[in-house]
Amino acid sequence: MPLVVQKYGGTSVADADRIRHVARRIVDTYKEGENVVAVVSAMGDGTDELLALARDVSQQDHPRELDMLLTAGERITMSLLAMAIQDLGVPAMSLTGSQAGILTTGRHGHAEIVEIKAMRVREGLDEGKVVIVAGYQGVDPDTKNVTTLGRGGSDATAVALASALGAGRCEIYTDVDGVFTADPRVVEDAVKIDGITFEEMLELASAGAGVLMPRSVEFGRRFNIPIHVRSSFHDGEGTWVKEDVMEEAVVRGIAHNISEAKVTVFAVPDTPGIAASLFEPLATAGINVDMIVQNISHDGTTDISFTVPTEASHLAKAEAEAVAADVGAGGVSVDERVGKVTVVGIGMKTESGVAAQMFRVLSDAGINIQMISTSPIRISCVVDQHQVESAVRALHVGLGLEGSSS
Amino acid sequence: MPLVVQKYGGTSVADADRIRHVARRIVDTYKEGENVVAVVSAMGDGTDELLALARDVSQQDHPRELDMLLTAGERITMSLLAMAIQDLGVPAMSLTGSQAGILTTGRHGHAEIVEIKAMRVREGLDEGKVVIVAGYQGVDPDTKNVTTLGRGGSDATAVALASALGAGRCEIYTDVDGVFTADPRVVEDAVKIDGITFEEMLELASAGAGVLMPRSVEFGRRFNIPIHVRSSFHDGEGTWVKEDVMEEAVVRGIAHNISEAKVTVFAVPDTPGIAASLFEPLATAGINVDMIVQNISHDGTTDISFTVPTEASHLAKAEAEAVAADVGAGGVSVDERVGKVTVVGIGMKTESGVAAQMFRVLSDAGINIQMISTSPIRISCVVDQHQVESAVRALHVGLGLEGSSS
Repeated sequence: MPLVVQKYGGTSVADADRIRHVARRIVDTYKEGENVVAVVSAMGDGTDELLALARDVSQQDHPRELDMLLTAGERITMSLLAMAIQDLGVPAMSLTGSQAGILTTGRHGHAEIVEIKAMRVREGLDEGKVVIVAGYQGVDPDTKNVTTLGRGGSDATAVALASALGAGRCEIYTDVDGVFTADPRVVEDAVKIDGITFEEMLELASAGAGVLMPRSVEFGRRFNIPIHVRSSFHDGEGTWVKEDVMEEAVVRGIAHNISEAKVTVFAVPDTPGIAASLFEPLATAGINVDMIVQNISHDGTTDISFTVPTEASHLAKAEAEAVAADVGAGGVSVDERVGKVTVVGIGMKTESGVAAQMFRVLSDAGINIQMISTSPIRISCVVDQHQVESAVRALHVGLGLEGSSS
Repeated sequence: MPLVVQKYGGTSVADADRIRHVARRIVDTYKEGENVVAVVSAMGDGTDELLALARDVSQQDHPRELDMLLTAGERITMSLLAMAIQDLGVPAMSLTGSQAGILTTGRHGHAEIVEIKAMRVREGLDEGKVVIVAGYQGVDPDTKNVTTLGRGGSDATAVALASALGAGRCEIYTDVDGVFTADPRVVEDAVKIDGITFEEMLELASAGAGVLMPRSVEFGRRFNIPIHVRSSFHDGEGTWVKEDVMEEAVVRGIAHNISEAKVTVFAVPDTPGIAASLFEPLATAGINVDMIVQNISHDGTTDISFTVPTEASHLAKAEAEAVAADVGAGGVSVDERVGKVTVVGIGMKTESGVAAQMFRVLSDAGINIQMISTSPIRISCVVDQHQVESAVRALHVGLGLEGSSS
C-alpha cells in the first residue's frame, strides 16, 4: 500500500473542531487506499503558552527541562487527533518523538535529527493503523533525554520520517494555500507557485519565506522526497517542492527579511587570513552570519560588511571591535535599520541579465542598494528597512511575476 | 545520605508562585542533608482541563490515547518544578513515569504498579540531584504504552518509589493539615490525628476519608514505609501513618460516605451456594460491592443486603433481579438515599463495648440503623442519607473524640 506522510501545523489543529476536520481529511486519504503517518504540532498557541508558563516560573535557562515542558504540547494534539480518527472508525495510534524512534543530537532546543528507528511506526502501519507522530521532538540516545528540534522542527520531522519510511510524498498542511511569488501580505497580486525546485525553495526559505524552514527542504532535497505545501482548510492543490519542475522560471519568487543588522568593519588591513580572524570568533560566539561582502582594497585596506540576526548585533559588534583593535582596523559600525530583498530563480543559471534588471527596477523606484550578494540562482540586496516592502512590490511588477503562475 | 520521597498534589503546585514555594521547601530539605525525590501531580485543575479537551473532541472511550493525553499534565508540573529548584542553585532533573521505571499493568486509566526499575532515579541522586518524578503514570513494559494509575495514583507512585529506593519516609503534601478525627467540613471540633496505624488508615480511607487513597496506604503497610501526611502551606507536623503508634486509641476517627446505594434481595431460598450465585455475576460486571449483610433465615428464606457505588446501582439491580428470578427469590429493592458512618480504632481489638456505645449514641440522636458490618477494628452503620452528618457529629462527641488529639 502506498504511504503518505502528512504534517499539520498549530493553526490546523488549534481547537476541537479543527482536530476533527483534520481527522476527516486523514480518514479520506486512508479510505482512498493509502497508509497515512500524520505529524502534528502543538495546538494553536500551545507552545507559546507553555513558554509563558516557564517564564512565569523562571527567568533563567533550563534547556533540558524546557524541552521536557514543551514536548507536552504535541503530546496533547496527537492523542486528541488519534481519538478523533478512531471515532471515524479507523484504527489510530499516537507516538511521541521518542516512541517513533526520532533520534537526535543532545542540543536542547536546537537538536538535529541523526537517525530514525521507526519500528513502532512500521508496526502500527502493518496493523492497518493511522500512526500519529509528535513533531518537533526526539530523544538523545546517549542520555535518553527528550529534545526539541527548534523552529520548523515539525516539518523536519515529517520530511525525515517520509524518507525513513520510503513514503512517496510528504504533505505539509498549513494556513496558507502554498508558496507564493512574494509575501501576499506585502504584494496583493502575489501568485501561488505550482512547482518549485528544492534548490529554489532552499534559497527562498533561507531568505525569509516563512512557509517552509530550510532544514526540511534540505531533508527533502537530500532524500528526494517531493513536498506538497497545501492548505488544511480546502482541497485545492498547493505548491509542489521537488527535484525538477517542468517550467524553468527565470525568476520564481521574491523573499524578504527585516530582522537582520548590517555590521561593517572599516579600513581592515588587506592581509591574508584577515577574514578568518574576524569570522572565527563570531562563529565561536554562536552568531549566525548571513551575507558577507568584501570589496577590492584601496591603499592596502578594505571594508568588510556582513549581516547578522538583529538580536545578535550587539554581541557581533563587541566581537568585531575586539578583532578590529587586534588587527589595527579603522573601526566598526552597526546599522539595524536594514532589510534584505532576495530574488530566486533556477533559470538564472542560464539566463543572464536578471541582476542588471533587478538593479534597474530598484533604481527606478528610488531605492539605494547598500550590499549585494549572489549565488547561481539568487540575488540578494540589502536596502534601507523602510524601503523593503516597496522594493518587493516594485520587483514583483518589474520582473514580471504578476498574474501568471510559474 | 538519608532519602525522603515527597509528594505534592495538584493544589500545592497550582500556579507559578506555589511551584516556587514547593521548590524552596524541597531545597530546604536538601540543604539539611537529605536526598529528595519529589513526586508531582498535574497543576491545579490540569487533569480536568485535559479531560474536558478530550470530551470536546470525542464522546467515546479511547483508553490508550486518553492516558497519553493526561500524562501531559504531570510532565508540565515536573519540568517547571525542576526549573524552579535549579534557580535556587540546586541541581534537579525531571523524569516521566516511564523514565523513572514505573512499570505497570496494561489496564489504561486503572493500571497497577508491578515493579519499579529506578536506575535513572538512582543515577540522578548519585549525581547529587533532586529528582522529580511524574506521579500517576507509568509504562506497560509489554506494549511500551504509557498508562495512568487512576485516582490517588500520585500517592501510590510516591509510596512505591519510597519502597523501591529504600527511603526512610514518604511525605504526602496536601492542602489540609493531616488526617482528622472526622471530616472538618462536617465536625467543627474535629482534631488532627498525630499518629495512626496503617491498618486504621486503611479502614478510614476505604470508608471514605479522602485525604489518602487505600492503595497508597496498602503500599506503605506492605513495605513498612512511614507516611507523613502534611500541609504544603506551613511547616507544622501533620499525621504520621505507620506500623505502630504509641497510644492505642479505642476510637481513632470517624469516616463517612454518601455515594453508596443499598440493594436488598428479599426472601432468598437459604440454600448453600446462594451467595456465590448472587455475587459472582456482580463481580463479572465489574461492580465494586462494599458491605454485605445476611441475617439468619426464617422459614427457609433470608434477606441479603449489600452496598454498591451509587453510579453502579442500576446495573447491580438488573444483575440481582436476574439472579432473583433464577433462584426464586422474592424480589429486589434499591435505596440510593443511604449513607455510611464508620468508626475506626485499633483498640477495639481489646476493648469491647464500642459497638454498643456507638449504637446508643445513634439511638439517642434519633437515627435508625439500617445495616451493620464490623471488622476487628471497625464498625460501619448504614443510615438514612440525610442523617449521616448528624450521626458523625453525635458520634464525635459521644465517643470522646472532641478536644484531645489521639
